[in-house]
Amino acid sequence: MTTQRRSGTPDSRRRSETSRRAILTAAFDLVGEVGYAKLSIEGIAARAGVGKQTIYRWWPSKGALLFDAFLTLAEPPDGGPTALPDTGDLEADLKLVLRATVEELRDPRYDGPMRALHTEIVNDPALAAEYAERLGGPMRELKKERLRAARHAGQLAEDVDLDLAVDMIFGPVLDRWLHRTGPLTAAFADRVVETALRGLSPRR
Amino acid sequence: MTTQRRSGTPDSRRRSETSRRAILTAAFDLVGEVGYAKLSIEGIAARAGVGKQTIYRWWPSKGALLFDAFLTLAEPPDGGPTALPDTGDLEADLKLVLRATVEELRDPRYDGPMRALHTEIVNDPALAAEYAERLGGPMRELKKERLRAARHAGQLAEDVDLDLAVDMIFGPVLDRWLHRTGPLTAAFADRVVETALRGLSPRR
Repeated sequence: MTTQRRSGTPDSRRRSETSRRAILTAAFDLVGEVGYAKLSIEGIAARAGVGKQTIYRWWPSKGALLFDAFLTLAEPPDGGPTALPDTGDLEADLKLVLRATVEELRDPRYDGPMRALHTEIVNDPALAAEYAERLGGPMRELKKERLRAARHAGQLAEDVDLDLAVDMIFGPVLDRWLHRTGPLTAAFADRVVETALRGLSPRR
Repeated sequence: MTTQRRSGTPDSRRRSETSRRAILTAAFDLVGEVGYAKLSIEGIAARAGVGKQTIYRWWPSKGALLFDAFLTLAEPPDGGPTALPDTGDLEADLKLVLRATVEELRDPRYDGPMRALHTEIVNDPALAAEYAERLGGPMRELKKERLRAARHAGQLAEDVDLDLAVDMIFGPVLDRWLHRTGPLTAAFADRVVETALRGLSPRR
């Protein structure tokens, strides 16, 4: 998840880790405040209290640093989930996930940085490709994995297209968040899951 | 749709209309090329071959001009539809509309300008409010009107939330377009309509 090399004594490793967290936090907070275009390595270094060279040594680009920030800070400290919950109750599992998504998007700490990241991706094909490879693609795979298990269990139509299913469940929430076209609530997340699953369910 | 005052002789009115179209076309094309942030009244005036003062006289802001450009150029010459098609066949009508949406979003002439507009809206609450009032809101109302008729005809569940219905039908397509997460095709539009309508259909 990081391009940093771990080496040196235990003390220097601890200092490195502290600097790394400070840099990631500064990048994450700053992009929400000033936007991607105005985000600079200088600004991040000043906010984090490190030298610019430290940043250049560890990350090849502003984009790479920002993705590490999202990967590190948008995940719980244990490294984050490697799979979506699977209790066997597809509807309950997806509501849990989509409610958590809504909560994160509504959190002022995340809304700004995520908005900055999303709009940059929309306009910058190179950043979009990096995002897809490092963050968007793997996250989509986790969602498809859970839906594949549900399809296998007969809870979704046999011929369901898993990418379409992901878009039907997550698309309406992302769209309402980005365009502020309506209230983004847990109730909305629940209705989206119910409607999408009814649409994707096996034909009887 | 425009803040321009029509006055003067028939000849001067014709000249005004020619200038107005040239300005709107220049604004629409330029925003796709340089983005909203770098779009300037100077640049538009130069491209359109008019003086800056002509633009300032007719439009109060860059945003207002851009919305007029979208309203005028994204519509057919007769002023555009004031309602969604209603043949009584909801699924066929929505497929027609969503396929047309996909076609417009895939058209290189529209993709750039629409991407610029959408991403600005995402980051600029004032522009977002203007968009919602002048373009987004009225378009959403047309969609809801068609879905309301379908609900009345018993083709949608009685308790269906029309805003949710709009989001389920249009959200996945907008999201896939903005984030380029998959192929944006007529077939995808059809599957989205089928899945959403099945999810929103009356319970039997």
